[in-house]
Amino acid sequence: METLLAELKAHGAAATVHAHPAVLTSEEAEAHIGGLPGAHIKNLLVSDKKHGVFLITMLTERRVDMKAVARALSLAGANLRFCDKEALKAHLGVEQGALSPLALANDADGKVTFVLDDGVLKHESVLAHPLVNTATLSLPTAALVAYATRHGHAPKTLDFDALAAAPPPAAPAVKADGPAKGAGASNGGGGGKGSAAAAKGETGLSLQNSKESDFTAWYTEVILKSEMIEYYDISGCYILRPWSFTIWDSIRDFLDALIKTLGVQNCYFPLFISKSALEAEKDHVEGFAPEVAWVTKSGDGDLAEPIAVRPTSETIMYPAYAKWIRSHRDLPLKLNQWNNVVRWEFKYPTPFLRSREFLWQEGHTAHATKAEADKEVLQVLDFYRRVYEELLAVPVIKGTKTDKEKFAGGDYTTTVEGFIAHTGRGIQGATSHCLGQNFGKMFKIEFEDERSEKQIPWQNSWGLTTRTIGVMVMTHSDNKGLVLPPRVAPIQLVVVPIPKKGADAEVFAKAEEVAAMLQAAGVRTTCDTRANYTPGWKYSHWELKGVPLRLEIGVNDLAKRQATLVRRDTGDKCEVPMPTLLQKVALLLVELQHDLLARATRERDERIKRVLTWAEFVPTLDGKCMALTPFCNETEWEDKVKELSREESLKRTDEAAEDVRTSTSVAAKTLCIPHDQPELPAGTPCFVSGKPAKCWVLWGRSY
Amino acid sequence: METLLAELKAHGAAATVHAHPAVLTSEEAEAHIGGLPGAHIKNLLVSDKKHGVFLITMLTERRVDMKAVARALSLAGANLRFCDKEALKAHLGVEQGALSPLALANDADGKVTFVLDDGVLKHESVLAHPLVNTATLSLPTAALVAYATRHGHAPKTLDFDALAAAPPPAAPAVKADGPAKGAGASNGGGGGKGSAAAAKGETGLSLQNSKESDFTAWYTEVILKSEMIEYYDISGCYILRPWSFTIWDSIRDFLDALIKTLGVQNCYFPLFISKSALEAEKDHVEGFAPEVAWVTKSGDGDLAEPIAVRPTSETIMYPAYAKWIRSHRDLPLKLNQWNNVVRWEFKYPTPFLRSREFLWQEGHTAHATKAEADKEVLQVLDFYRRVYEELLAVPVIKGTKTDKEKFAGGDYTTTVEGFIAHTGRGIQGATSHCLGQNFGKMFKIEFEDERSEKQIPWQNSWGLTTRTIGVMVMTHSDNKGLVLPPRVAPIQLVVVPIPKKGADAEVFAKAEEVAAMLQAAGVRTTCDTRANYTPGWKYSHWELKGVPLRLEIGVNDLAKRQATLVRRDTGDKCEVPMPTLLQKVALLLVELQHDLLARATRERDERIKRVLTWAEFVPTLDGKCMALTPFCNETEWEDKVKELSREESLKRTDEAAEDVRTSTSVAAKTLCIPHDQPELPAGTPCFVSGKPAKCWVLWGRSY
Repeated sequence: METLLAELKAHGAAATVHAHPAVLTSEEAEAHIGGLPGAHIKNLLVSDKKHGVFLITMLTERRVDMKAVARALSLAGANLRFCDKEALKAHLGVEQGALSPLALANDADGKVTFVLDDGVLKHESVLAHPLVNTATLSLPTAALVAYATRHGHAPKTLDFDALAAAPPPAAPAVKADGPAKGAGASNGGGGGKGSAAAAKGETGLSLQNSKESDFTAWYTEVILKSEMIEYYDISGCYILRPWSFTIWDSIRDFLDALIKTLGVQNCYFPLFISKSALEAEKDHVEGFAPEVAWVTKSGDGDLAEPIAVRPTSETIMYPAYAKWIRSHRDLPLKLNQWNNVVRWEFKYPTPFLRSREFLWQEGHTAHATKAEADKEVLQVLDFYRRVYEELLAVPVIKGTKTDKEKFAGGDYTTTVEGFIAHTGRGIQGATSHCLGQNFGKMFKIEFEDERSEKQIPWQNSWGLTTRTIGVMVMTHSDNKGLVLPPRVAPIQLVVVPIPKKGADAEVFAKAEEVAAMLQAAGVRTTCDTRANYTPGWKYSHWELKGVPLRLEIGVNDLAKRQATLVRRDTGDKCEVPMPTLLQKVALLLVELQHDLLARATRERDERIKRVLTWAEFVPTLDGKCMALTPFCNETEWEDKVKELSREESLKRTDEAAEDVRTSTSVAAKTLCIPHDQPELPAGTPCFVSGKPAKCWVLWGRSY
Repeated sequence: METLLAELKAHGAAATVHAHPAVLTSEEAEAHIGGLPGAHIKNLLVSDKKHGVFLITMLTERRVDMKAVARALSLAGANLRFCDKEALKAHLGVEQGALSPLALANDADGKVTFVLDDGVLKHESVLAHPLVNTATLSLPTAALVAYATRHGHAPKTLDFDALAAAPPPAAPAVKADGPAKGAGASNGGGGGKGSAAAAKGETGLSLQNSKESDFTAWYTEVILKSEMIEYYDISGCYILRPWSFTIWDSIRDFLDALIKTLGVQNCYFPLFISKSALEAEKDHVEGFAPEVAWVTKSGDGDLAEPIAVRPTSETIMYPAYAKWIRSHRDLPLKLNQWNNVVRWEFKYPTPFLRSREFLWQEGHTAHATKAEADKEVLQVLDFYRRVYEELLAVPVIKGTKTDKEKFAGGDYTTTVEGFIAHTGRGIQGATSHCLGQNFGKMFKIEFEDERSEKQIPWQNSWGLTTRTIGVMVMTHSDNKGLVLPPRVAPIQLVVVPIPKKGADAEVFAKAEEVAAMLQAAGVRTTCDTRANYTPGWKYSHWELKGVPLRLEIGVNDLAKRQATLVRRDTGDKCEVPMPTLLQKVALLLVELQHDLLARATRERDERIKRVLTWAEFVPTLDGKCMALTPFCNETEWEDKVKELSREESLKRTDEAAEDVRTSTSVAAKTLCIPHDQPELPAGTPCFVSGKPAKCWVLWGRSY
């Protein structure tokens, strides 16, 4: 590294060294350098027998499959595969995790081709490992390019934006967000039948990735192109655009009304926690401490003591509870807040599912008796189920977490567990905790009961986050883009007029009249009257955004006093006489909502397998299923399953080496002990320990 | 200080020194030690010829007048006055700002009596100046007490909680929050006429401070006792309890619907800003930098680069705007978010009015033309006026800020200005800014207009905060507590049954029936059926909480098929026949809302004085009025007025030395250039410079 730094210095490049613990992946590195300005890059060494070795350096947020890269590099028939540790060492002389363009100097005979993401060049500086994986160098981007060029590796730059936006190989490249100018006239009449498919090629609005072939890239593309999310220059933080935030508002309205039926009141507690308050409950602070963000400065000055940004508000709220709760008459105390929390996670961030700041509601209640607290835990859990099932059309399984997986500092945790069929992974939907009297003891919350005796109240806390939106997207959306359940869709129906020379005015007027009628009847409707886009472009655009219903009106429809309705989820079309239109729309919205849940439930149910022996366990997970097993419910055995399943998975998946390298989550974990328990005959052995099973437990790989 | 530390060490007291710049008041000290755990204290040296010298040490949040302290210390006829610098030096050998119980060692002949707030003893540690005002010592509370005792100053402890809650001197002390047990039977019948006043003495619910005698203490007491606010252990952060948060929710619902009529959409941007983005607009960052809180650590590790917590979101949002805005078709872009922001202010914090974290909405829009932007600025400003006037019944004056007072980095700022009659101070209500093209240039936001030419959009930003609630409280509330305008009152009407032996069941049943009827008709109603409180206690309780209407039902009312309605604002009572009750309630709610605004407008208008010469200026402010003056509108002269008015005020107010010591805000500042301008005859001279006046400007002392 010293030589490298000396060389950079000699060429006038100002480089700053950021030391950190050894890292093996760019994801791990981000945990340490996440806040640094400049281009954050990942570096892939890939090769192909025919075409040689490539170092591909791109922005960390890119999700590009190697086939697209090969196409863009015009490597006909290339099958680019990741180089293993040994090849990495042999080609570029560095260990795993230390790869960066700075290692190109070690390729003296110029075997490696350097491919650089154009996007990197848009940043003034770039972050790269200086031949070791225990530090990151921040240096001017121009200096990095100069360095590579000096060492005979002038970069081949590639437009990764175009790569992501490009249409399938057959069609010519078109700008993704541009209108198909002047194409309008060629596209009128005929009610638009069959034109949607044809339009795709013209519009460039189709997705580059498919749900089946690269789920992660597909997800990213869907939420970006539908305008739900925008990326942000601080890793793990995302912008919620109106298209997703409106959904969060719907969830908020729905859930807020439900919790108010329990007498819960909204309030607002501060964002910041003093160190001493945060540390009042030992298990709790241990659970959260590694992820806490600390404010230590204001303006130019240091704060006397660091202040934590809330990861959750137990330790903020309960000192006040100790003040407010004196008598049994002060109970139950039921407060809730809708707010933002920060958990500086080190895992790879994913929009909605795992972000460093997220929105949620957190309810915190205190009760005179355990029975009351227990009852509320389940009432709220059922509200959470209703958010998923009734609003988002996502099926969930209610259950209780094992001791190993419960909330830090609480008595027990109940959960609604979702399932992403395409990856075969479970996902925690929302949790409702009984905290017991632990926090009460730590925060000295006491009340006098009716016999004037001091008691400690029973407390609950429960929360539901913006993760809900991510689970919904993953569940319903398809290779045309987002599919939104009607109850939360910001727009439920889009009216698209089909212009025809000489009849434009009439068609547009009718379209607006119908839209106004539906809007007045309470259907969230928009009429897309933009003159500079073709109907085909509009179809693709609104499909990408997931609008549940499309209503097409053309000249023929005018004559027949009808319109054509198209379902986003199935593509089913029907012609509807105008007088029955409103009722038909109302019916379709309800049917579509119902069908989404039914379909997702079917897909999920097919993937729950009863597993009675260890031998079946990992193969079940590999088959993208969850395993329902009889289990002894001992933490020691739970740890063992995690470890054994990981080892066994790694053995089985040599080919998926890339996935394994970047993820430890091939291990199985308990999702929950489902509340709906099948019969468990006495003496049924635990599937792993052979001891008598205590209950059925649902296992899976998970997010 | 060294000797002191050595002594503490010798006695086994673990003390930590926190060095900071010299401070003159506890308020200034808080700017540096605000985040430290332990008791934060203020120390007052007061004396009285008859009774001697007292060092009074209390928690910083206490608002206790010296008369109450004198009473509690049984100092008959005492008139405790603050000691000046010289006396401070003579008695305790320390300079201004360095006072703490640690200075008691310098009072070798024991002339000073040490009075200690009980509340301090509830903290394990305490923060005290070690004889100098350039450091604060954190030491165990027990060690401080031991130290004082060793030096012959064992503390006289005083229950400041009881002090604040105690009834007026005439009545015997009763616990503030306890019910008047068993007093129910003596209080029945007769429709409760005249019983409210009598009940006060019994209940201890009356306020200790009056709006006229100590406005600050009164305000604090009102928001605490009405359960709007709870204090928090981080200085400048407050808990918004349901009683105030519900009002914020009402404001949100009202304003959100209004801004949506302009096509504004809600969204959510991250809490954090990278350093480079924050610094992109020079004037802007200069305006906010001193107040920015910085996150520098996560878990145990340091972040590579500090990350700012948003003080406002211009620099967070506009890089995304640069990405989204390409064509004139992408305009206007109108986004809004309801969120929390952090400004680590060094001024004395006041709940609602000035807190380090607060809630607000911030709208950020971009337009193709200046005309469009200008128009929206005023539309939104009028929405803000409507929030104040229609919802909160608080009159405001619409105007434009002078260049000196405008938003950092913007073109011009419009404002709605409120006025607190009891203190004679103006208060900025909410602001709507035209940012011009400055941010557009800095963030490279560009669009192609219809002739395919590059243009920079015109941007606005506008915000309204939880400060609204504080202004409302200060405007309407009285010496019985809060007065809430019906439109935002969480409860609009409370039904209080007047029990009478033998007829309780009947009275309670009727009360609940009436409450249910009103509730069903949309009146936010509660029925106070608690058996362990007297009607008189209930009257005081709901008056303290500001519920607009009270409905009393007694046995006599049952017989006459009527009920008694009492207005919170005026105390007016009327007997209403049951069949007309609903309409009467509906009328009174509207009348009360109207009257509050009318009254406040009258009081405000009486305090706007036209001032044509400098000689009248400061006397007008001293008369608790605002001055409307012809002004040359030059920043140089605005600075001069600020300086001159401060000097002149200080000369005039020798007696109010205490106030002057802790506040620089006796200076006048421009509140706004009112949009409603009186005629300004050509050649009218500026009241201060004598140059030709350009406009009428409203001046005042302000919050």
